[in-house]
Amino acid sequence: MDIPSYQDMLAAHERIRPHIRLTPVLQSDHLNALSGARLFFKCENLQEPGAFKVRGATNAVFSLDRDRAAAGVATHSSGNHALCLSYAAGLRGIPCNVVMPHTAPEAKKDAVRRYGGTITECEPSTSSREETFARVQARTGSEFVHPYNDPRVIAGQGTCAKELIEQTGGLDIVTAPIGGGGMISGTCLTLAKLAPDTQVIAAEPEQADDAYRSFKAGQLIADDAPQTVADGLKVPLKDLTWHFVSNHVSDILTVSEQEIVDAMRLGWKYLRLVIEPSSAVPLAAILKNAERFKDKRVGVIITGGNVDLDRLPWTEGA
Amino acid sequence: MDIPSYQDMLAAHERIRPHIRLTPVLQSDHLNALSGARLFFKCENLQEPGAFKVRGATNAVFSLDRDRAAAGVATHSSGNHALCLSYAAGLRGIPCNVVMPHTAPEAKKDAVRRYGGTITECEPSTSSREETFARVQARTGSEFVHPYNDPRVIAGQGTCAKELIEQTGGLDIVTAPIGGGGMISGTCLTLAKLAPDTQVIAAEPEQADDAYRSFKAGQLIADDAPQTVADGLKVPLKDLTWHFVSNHVSDILTVSEQEIVDAMRLGWKYLRLVIEPSSAVPLAAILKNAERFKDKRVGVIITGGNVDLDRLPWTEGA
Repeated sequence: MDIPSYQDMLAAHERIRPHIRLTPVLQSDHLNALSGARLFFKCENLQEPGAFKVRGATNAVFSLDRDRAAAGVATHSSGNHALCLSYAAGLRGIPCNVVMPHTAPEAKKDAVRRYGGTITECEPSTSSREETFARVQARTGSEFVHPYNDPRVIAGQGTCAKELIEQTGGLDIVTAPIGGGGMISGTCLTLAKLAPDTQVIAAEPEQADDAYRSFKAGQLIADDAPQTVADGLKVPLKDLTWHFVSNHVSDILTVSEQEIVDAMRLGWKYLRLVIEPSSAVPLAAILKNAERFKDKRVGVIITGGNVDLDRLPWTEGA
Repeated sequence: MDIPSYQDMLAAHERIRPHIRLTPVLQSDHLNALSGARLFFKCENLQEPGAFKVRGATNAVFSLDRDRAAAGVATHSSGNHALCLSYAAGLRGIPCNVVMPHTAPEAKKDAVRRYGGTITECEPSTSSREETFARVQARTGSEFVHPYNDPRVIAGQGTCAKELIEQTGGLDIVTAPIGGGGMISGTCLTLAKLAPDTQVIAAEPEQADDAYRSFKAGQLIADDAPQTVADGLKVPLKDLTWHFVSNHVSDILTVSEQEIVDAMRLGWKYLRLVIEPSSAVPLAAILKNAERFKDKRVGVIITGGNVDLDRLPWTEGA
């Protein structure tokens, strides 16, 4: 297990800085009043491809030596990593192959294609995805960039917490959603050194709570094919992300599907940001556990904003 | 006619700075590619009450001497000025009375009430609004802050273009929607002095094109009760805003209802911002007149983001 270091994160930031946005940190007096906390929203949905995953993907793509890069990159992903890797590969002018479940949101599939990625579809289970991917990679010989269990990716994601601390001047708590754990791991990596007194609290859907159960059990427990509106958070922790979660995360809070949809709507209404369901999970957790966050300076990583605008969860079935 | 000066705008900026946000300027590679221009979106939808009108409203409220302020402020508005004046009055702790058409979006009425404003409803016509307002003002004795035909308001709106020029380092063109003309007038006021080579191009719905027709005719032509999805742009120019429009605007471009809705959706999808229909009018005009804007550095003022999330124009009637 090749654990990325704080130096790797700093190197990643230098490497990706020309290619990514320094996203703004926004506040809302109304959401502060509602939560009782002072919330600082780090808007990774405002990255060009609409998600924080552009950080890790860009770091991986631009880390490759010229020969390795020429064969391209490949991945499997529930969505944002796929489109961000396609975007990063496009920046460098190399091919990108992605394996996506056929159930992935159309908005994310369209974006992969727009950025020049080639999609191979699979069933919406971890096992089908890994099997399909093995075939694609054998055929193309391209460099595998795992969506989160990859030191280059974790180092890249860690640059977000660095900016957030620099932009806010310090925080009591940083919250982010947890799926595979790439953002949370990068956040732990960065804060352990840069702001060791800042707690990292992860937020997870009840219906995809492998990280919560692993955290409470003290050992890695895997799910296969959980169902949640937060489509970016269906994937399980792996050894590298479990390392960071088990060693540095202060707590994991879970929220219901309805709480996620309600928080997503609050984000649209009061932040005037298009945020995807996964991005609303930390806000839902803050509102549900208000006493935990009361009067604290809390960083909230808005992870992405790629939403199918024809299928909003609060109008579904209405 | 009391025409505000550049010094009034500078004084307004000092006065309101502690109360408003320095909103970010965002870019989208995708929208740049689509338009052929280099677009700089000034995100006034990210003001706490969700609209640029907080600038003029705050300037007016904090300009009042203590005795005048104690009697409160009053206005009539199709929406954002009403809620921004309520918000600004709340900041100073004084009453605010607003007259709104009963057809105004519920989201905007709710916000007025949330900020502590008192609503009196009227019919959706300029004449009914003015008549109802006269009664309210006579009863309360409060200070009238017109939504746009007021030098304090225009000076406040002009602070937005000041920030936009400072944040971008200079632009070839600034575009903004035109309804009553407050934002366009403030933009003209500021740019005439700060960036005299920067063109000001206004964008207007075809279905509420009194500014366009006035501009082409060289004299003020008023509408009553036009219908457009861009609910913030139904009001007509008045003498003070006509002064700026007739003297400094380079052109006025009009767009259809469908073009507004399409551009609004583009903003949601690629900027990941919740923008209201009025805010999409300049982007629609740029895409429709691409040759005009090709290779130019274009500032686009995103005027507001107060939308009824249950009634999106691309799902209406679907």
